[in-house]
Order: sequence, then C-alpha cells, then structure tokens
Amino acid sequence: MLTISGKNCIGYADSALGAQTFQAVNPVSDTVFGISFVQATDAEVDLAVSKATEAFQIWSNEPLQNRVAFLKAIAVAVHSHSAELTRWYCEETGLPLSRAKTELERSCFQFESYAEAIASGFALSIRIEPSSGPGKPDLRKMNVPLGAVVVFGASNFPFAYSTLGGDVASALAAGCPVIVKAHPMHPHTSELSARIILSVAREMGLPDGVFSHLHAIDYKVGEQLVLHPHIKAVGFTGSIQGGTTLVRLANSRLVPIPVYAEMGSSNPMVFTTEVLAVRSESIAKEVAASISLSAGQFCTSPGLLFMVDSDATKQFLSSLAALLQKTEPQIMLHPGIYKQYEQQASQHLEGSEILVNGLRLNNEIQPSLVRISSRQLLREPGRAEEVFGSFATAVVCENESELLACLNALSGQLTASLYLEPHENGAILMSALQRFAGRIIVNGVPTGVAVSAAMQHGGPFPSSSIPSSTAVGSDAIQRFMRPVCFQNVTDDLLPNSLKIANPEGLLRFVNGLFTNAPC
Amino acid sequence: MLTISGKNCIGYADSALGAQTFQAVNPVSDTVFGISFVQATDAEVDLAVSKATEAFQIWSNEPLQNRVAFLKAIAVAVHSHSAELTRWYCEETGLPLSRAKTELERSCFQFESYAEAIASGFALSIRIEPSSGPGKPDLRKMNVPLGAVVVFGASNFPFAYSTLGGDVASALAAGCPVIVKAHPMHPHTSELSARIILSVAREMGLPDGVFSHLHAIDYKVGEQLVLHPHIKAVGFTGSIQGGTTLVRLANSRLVPIPVYAEMGSSNPMVFTTEVLAVRSESIAKEVAASISLSAGQFCTSPGLLFMVDSDATKQFLSSLAALLQKTEPQIMLHPGIYKQYEQQASQHLEGSEILVNGLRLNNEIQPSLVRISSRQLLREPGRAEEVFGSFATAVVCENESELLACLNALSGQLTASLYLEPHENGAILMSALQRFAGRIIVNGVPTGVAVSAAMQHGGPFPSSSIPSSTAVGSDAIQRFMRPVCFQNVTDDLLPNSLKIANPEGLLRFVNGLFTNAPC
Repeated sequence: MLTISGKNCIGYADSALGAQTFQAVNPVSDTVFGISFVQATDAEVDLAVSKATEAFQIWSNEPLQNRVAFLKAIAVAVHSHSAELTRWYCEETGLPLSRAKTELERSCFQFESYAEAIASGFALSIRIEPSSGPGKPDLRKMNVPLGAVVVFGASNFPFAYSTLGGDVASALAAGCPVIVKAHPMHPHTSELSARIILSVAREMGLPDGVFSHLHAIDYKVGEQLVLHPHIKAVGFTGSIQGGTTLVRLANSRLVPIPVYAEMGSSNPMVFTTEVLAVRSESIAKEVAASISLSAGQFCTSPGLLFMVDSDATKQFLSSLAALLQKTEPQIMLHPGIYKQYEQQASQHLEGSEILVNGLRLNNEIQPSLVRISSRQLLREPGRAEEVFGSFATAVVCENESELLACLNALSGQLTASLYLEPHENGAILMSALQRFAGRIIVNGVPTGVAVSAAMQHGGPFPSSSIPSSTAVGSDAIQRFMRPVCFQNVTDDLLPNSLKIANPEGLLRFVNGLFTNAPC
Repeated sequence: MLTISGKNCIGYADSALGAQTFQAVNPVSDTVFGISFVQATDAEVDLAVSKATEAFQIWSNEPLQNRVAFLKAIAVAVHSHSAELTRWYCEETGLPLSRAKTELERSCFQFESYAEAIASGFALSIRIEPSSGPGKPDLRKMNVPLGAVVVFGASNFPFAYSTLGGDVASALAAGCPVIVKAHPMHPHTSELSARIILSVAREMGLPDGVFSHLHAIDYKVGEQLVLHPHIKAVGFTGSIQGGTTLVRLANSRLVPIPVYAEMGSSNPMVFTTEVLAVRSESIAKEVAASISLSAGQFCTSPGLLFMVDSDATKQFLSSLAALLQKTEPQIMLHPGIYKQYEQQASQHLEGSEILVNGLRLNNEIQPSLVRISSRQLLREPGRAEEVFGSFATAVVCENESELLACLNALSGQLTASLYLEPHENGAILMSALQRFAGRIIVNGVPTGVAVSAAMQHGGPFPSSSIPSSTAVGSDAIQRFMRPVCFQNVTDDLLPNSLKIANPEGLLRFVNGLFTNAPC
C-alpha cells in the first residue's frame, strides 16, 4: 500500500522542508481535501537535480534492456494500482470513471509502446556506414539521452500528460532521469503515480535520482528547475502563456535548453457546402459530441467551424445548436479552470451572434456556440484564439475565397479537420490546412489522439514551441536525445547498440537499408 | 557563360537598387577586385522573400521527382563550371587549387546524396499505421517542407558551407525555397554559384523565387531576413557571437523560427600516457597536419590537446612543436580573419608557456602551440575557447583525475578525439567525451567531415544552437521540415508519398517495419 503524504519525493527520499503548503480541491463539491502538500524548497529542488545528474552517470551506461524493463514494469505496476489511481483521479477532477480508466490504459500503453520503440532500435535512429576502404572512416551514429529532464504535469490529463504521461514515458525511454513538477490541481493522483514509479525503480535497484516528484503551488519551483544549469530539457503541456514563459526562461540561460511546450489550439474544422447539404445531421452529431467531450478540456477540442453560407449551413448550425443545448452540464476540472473559461467565453460571446449560450454556474458548464462572419474574424483575429472548455465559433463565409482568406490568416494549430464528399476536389483546402496544422483529419473530429508511430501531436507555433517534434507517439522519445557519431571507434569502446555483432538485435540503417543484421 | 555582375539575384531578376557597395579582396596580394557588389536594399530583401513565399505555394505541390531532378542537375551544372568556380575560389581565399577541387566535389556529392535521401524516402521519415479495425484511425505521417529558408554563406567554405553548401542542398532537398545571404569575403564565387543554380532552375521551369541570392557587407540584410515574418528557418555557419545573435533575433519574433547555427568548437583531443609512450612520433605528425590544414580555418580544427604529464608527453610536445615550426606559412582567407586570429592568438599566448610562436605577418600565419596546466585551464576557462586558425593549447595534467576534471568543465564541442592503445580501457574517457561532443573519433584527428547518413556535425551548445540536428549528412535535410499526420485521409487527397500504392517506391515505416511495399 502506497501512502500519499503531501511530501516531495527527492529520488527515494521523502522531504517536506518548506513552509508553503496547499490543498487540492474536489471540483464537484468545491471542498478541499485533508492532505497538505508541501511546496519544494530551493534546497529540495537543488537536491533533486543533483541526484538526477548523478543518477544519469550510472543510468546512461546501463544496458538498454534495463531501460526497457523499467518502462514495462511501470505499466504493470500502474495496472496493479488502477483502483486507487482512478479513484483519486475522479475525486480530484470530477471526470467520470470511464474516462479515468481509458486514460489509465493510454498511460500504460505509452510506457509499453515506447519501451518497444527503444527495444527495437527504432527510437535510437541508428545509422551505420562502415569504412568503404583505406582512409575512409567507419561511422556509427545513434541517439543518446540528454540528461536530467523536467516535466510539468498538465491539469487536463492527470494520467496521460502528467506523472504517468507521455513526456515522462518518452524522457525515461530516452534514458533521461526525470523530475516531475506536479500539477497542483491533482497532487494526490500525481504523488501516487510518482510513488508507483519510484517503487518500481527501487525494486529494480535503479540509481537514486532517476525519478523525483516535486509539489508546487506557485511558479517558483518550475522557474528554478528550468533555469538550473544541470537540467537539459523540459516537457510542458498547457497554455500558450505558460509555455512561452518557460521557453523565454530557457533561452535566457547561459546554455539554452529545448522546451517542448505543447500549447493551445483551436482545431479548426472546415465543412464544404456539399457535405453539409448531404449529411448535416450526422456531422452535427459528431461535432457536438467532440465539442462536449470532457467539457472541452482538451488541446484538440474543436473551437472553430468554417463554412460558406447556404441553406445547408443554416440547417447544420441549427442542428448543432439543438444538440449542444441538450448536452448535460459537466463539472470542470477545477474552480480555477472554470473561472478562466467563464472569462474567455464571455469575451467570445460579446459581439457575436449567440446560437447557444450554455450554462456556466458553480464549476459546471454546457457548451456554447456563436456565429461570426469571415470579415469579423479577419478584423478581430482574437476570435480565433482558444477558449479552454466547450466553446465553438462558427465562422460563416460569403464564399470559398473568404474561407481561404480566413484559413490563411490562422496561426499554428495542432489539428485541422476537413469534411467533404467523396467526389469533391479538396486539394486547395488540404494545402491550406497543411500550412498551419500538425495533423489533418478528413471527415473526422480532432479529439482522440492515437498513440502511434504515425501520430503527430504538435503543430506550427504557437500550438507547439518546437513544431518538428511530437508529444504523442514513439517519435516523442527523440525530443530527449541527441545524436552522437562514433568515428573509427573500436568495437570494445562502442555502445552495445552500435557494435558490429548487433548484440541487442536492433533495427539499424546500414549503408542505405534498415536491417537487424550484424555490421 | 555566366557573368558576375555584383547585382543581387531576386529570383530570376537581377537587381542593384542600393547605394551601398563593396569589393572583394585577394588575400594573397591584399588588393581589391574590380567588381562592385551592391548590398540588397530593404525593398529587394522583401521582394526576394515574397517571391520565395509564392514559389513555395507551387513548388511544395510538385512531384518529389522534380525536386530530386533539380538537385542532381545542380551537381551536373556545378561540375561543368568547375574551372571558373575554382579559379574564383582560389583568388578570393588564397586557398590552393587542390582544396578548391576537393571542396567542389564535396558540394556536388552533397546535392547528389541529399537527392538520393529524398528519392529513397529516407529523409521524409514516413510512418504509416493503417486502421486496425472499426473506429481505429488510418494514420500516415511524413515530413513536409517548412517554407522559405535563409542560408548565410560561411567565410571558410566558399563551396561546401556557402551558396553550393550543405544548408542550401538540404533546404532545397526538403522542398524549401532558399534565399542565400552571400558571405562578403567571397562574393564572386557565391554569385557565380547562385547563377549556376538559377540557370538550372530556369531551364527546368521552376517557379521564380525558388532561389535568390543577396549581397551584403553589413548585418542589415541578414537581420531583416531573420526577422521577416515569411521566413520559416535559418541556416548559419560561423562564430558563436554571430550565431547567438541570430538565435536571439529569431526568438524575438512574434512567431519564433529555428536557427540552425553551427558555431565554434575547440575540438579537444585526449592522449593517454601509454599511447604517447608507444607512438608519440606518428601521432605528432597526424596532429601537426590537422592543426596546420588550411591554416586551421575549420570548425573542426584541433585547439585543445589533453594529456597527463610524463616523459612521453614531453617527447610528444617537443616533436609536435618541431613539426609545427617547420610548417610553411599559409595565407588566411581574408585580412579581417587574419586580424581576428592575431588578436585571439596574442590573448592565448599571454600567460602560457609558449612552445611555438608561429609567424603572424601580412595575412600569413604559421601554427602556434602553447602549454598550460590543468589548474590554469580550470582557473581561466577562456583558454578553452576557440582560436579560429592554427593554434593549439596543450593542457598538461598532473594525473587522470585532473584530466577528467578539465573534460567535465568543457562546454559543448563538435568533436572530441581519443588516442589510446588497443588494450587500454577507455570507457571512462569515452563517457566523459560523450557528455560534450557530437562526434567522437578514436585514434584520429577531427578534421575531415565525411558526408554520410551516419555523420553527426553538431554538438551541445555552443557548438550548435540545436544539438539534436546535424549540418552534414542526409539527416541535415530534416532541419527544414516538420511532420504532418494525415488521419483517415482518402487516397486521392493524400500526398503521393503516402498513397496506398506507394507510387514513388519510397522506404516507409509501416506497422513497425521499414518497407517499400504498398500499404
């Protein structure tokens, strides 16, 4: 039985030296839980970083199979604590148990599939070109871990983007020690998750400091971590403001480090007139469900709906409005998030034609839907900005060229959707969407981000700080590695993954072909 | 016959609207050439960017094979102009014809091999996971070009890191239009190179703006380019000061963009006592040749030599000193570079034990060699900084633990070399070198950077601004792309490279395996 103590986990040591404490909130009852969580002090942050740095010396030299075993064992241990984890998850977020269970499975699958991506060699991006003759060098390149990584837990995914989330899984898969700065909206879930990871690490005899978990209610701990000279990279999921602040901090360092910030997105959806004429009812159902899902508290929640004015458009919007109106009220994750939603929704409601003015009361909301013209969007680009929570703006254009003008004015987005009929030529629209989006979905909603090697969860700025990276899928591991080339290095001094015999049986790119053969 | 006019090439149009002109210098005679080069005006810079942006709309939708053909045709055209190119190269740099010819071949090979990396699909990083059942999405991801890219020519490689260089080759391979800001130290070579690329583009009917070439003598043009909202990425090779300035500018934009700056490096070499005892003469020869090569005007020129004090060490340093003393004087690339070398060398000579005080006179130099203790290096870390030109600092340590302390104090480097005997255990040293270097060479010198998929030319900051990237080898192409995932996109709307039939016969990662098969 693991105990939630409110203390920080500095490697294997519990520590609560600080005077600043906070409590978590049950958003359903709007009451606080009993445990006091103790914000990490400067000294505790320093200790966590120095333990991580020391752990890296040992851990980065251990066999690949130990890393794989660690990741897989975490997934097993999480499963065995699923009842306790999902209980805290629901209590701290107000989200339903079904969502908690799905998200837990997602977390476990991430650890498992990233373990596979390391075990197969895929994520190591090995390239080998043996010497082609006298005077020609033998060159062997692979990804090596960066060092100690900081991950910020995200409010909206207490499992899948927090302590058991994709950033932690990919940084550990990369071979980096991880320090989690827990999100203060779900500290019970986060600490319990950390203690599961730590119990696995301890049981496997991993070096102290390979994982640490810090509580914090204000920005101080995060700032100190990002500025610490021994931290080598940062993973963050949250708002544009939060992400860009961390990026600025990281760039101000003597030695700048990458901040992989997955920030906001309005996830524009485009509907052709024809598709709405043919199947506006079924599309309205899909879109309404996507807008409503988990009270819209997703980075992929659809916030912008583009269409050209027509009878079908009117019909679609009226069906969509009717469906959204019938949506059951949902509790938001936290009173703080509810308050922010209320503020953003009010701003967007003002000056728009209101189609649905959803409930906003005591942390509970129903979706809202407004309609604006394309000209209004072009005049007031702030109307394209994300509202975090179920809120959609229908942008009704006079013609397709106005629609394209709107799309061309959009900033970077995680996703873009295009609904069209099979025989329609969507090439121009696809090209317009590709300019600003990291993922394009045809005849589908943006919510639901599959964990897959083929997933791209990251788009042009400001949806991501580093658009060439993905936060989901095994390519996410690469964010926490850098390539090193070994030139004419004798077999005894090569990392196992690059040795001629290929003792780990990895997939390696050798002389232009991918192969598991020795070379 | 292509004419060097001193004008800017704004796409296919020559333009010389500016009042600011400059002339190139022959560093051997220290005299100026006749042609006046006209710095691009604000309006010309704007026009080049808008042409590039328009060209991108067309060019990014053209078949992959056209891009491949363009790159290959550039290599052919460069070969056919090799006499003229190498003549200007030698006149503008003072470098010997043999070096010019080698570098020209390297440039051509880069265009050819990056063409192959695109044609094979390797550089597109395609991942496909078809739907695994009802409700499961079909996911297909590939790299797409970022858009208009700016490349800054480098002073020390008028071919291989300038207008015909790796940044241009990789950005064009990625599918990006390129605007080159020519280096003012070799404007003839650069303009001639640009006109060759443009003649190929024109002949193939490529859109106007796919390539532009701008002259500039001050920083204004470069600044304007990096800050231009339609520029999507920057390639730079040069000093730490120059690179970090560009990074800062790019980060100050409303939409930040990546600056791939390959900056300075001192390329530390480590010699075990035993290896020096066994073969100090032959090693001294290799090291002396590497230090002297092209007057040390390489980012991989060795500047730091680490060893533990012993009789063998004294013997090695005395052999090395004798060889360096006998080196023929060499002309530096430019009076400006010579002046900077003189200043940096004087700083490093002061307070050191001088083993060789090489000639420094009228743009000509011979290598210098100084000796300091490990304690001095730890006290004065500035002594580890790069001197651009043939200059080496031998750091003689009292014991191996002092040597490790020195290595642990080093900042990021492009390379590190380790000389040791076959039976010696170099694991600790290898691990120390891996912390700060992008490439580790065993029993070899750092000069000579093979163009290979397995090459890594980029190390931790400040040797590179983005250490996860390489400036040499086909992985360099990835710097100018970002992944886009296509979810449930019907075959007619998919890019050719992702279509089920795999019409381009590309290497694609499908369900965990690399294959050319349809899927």
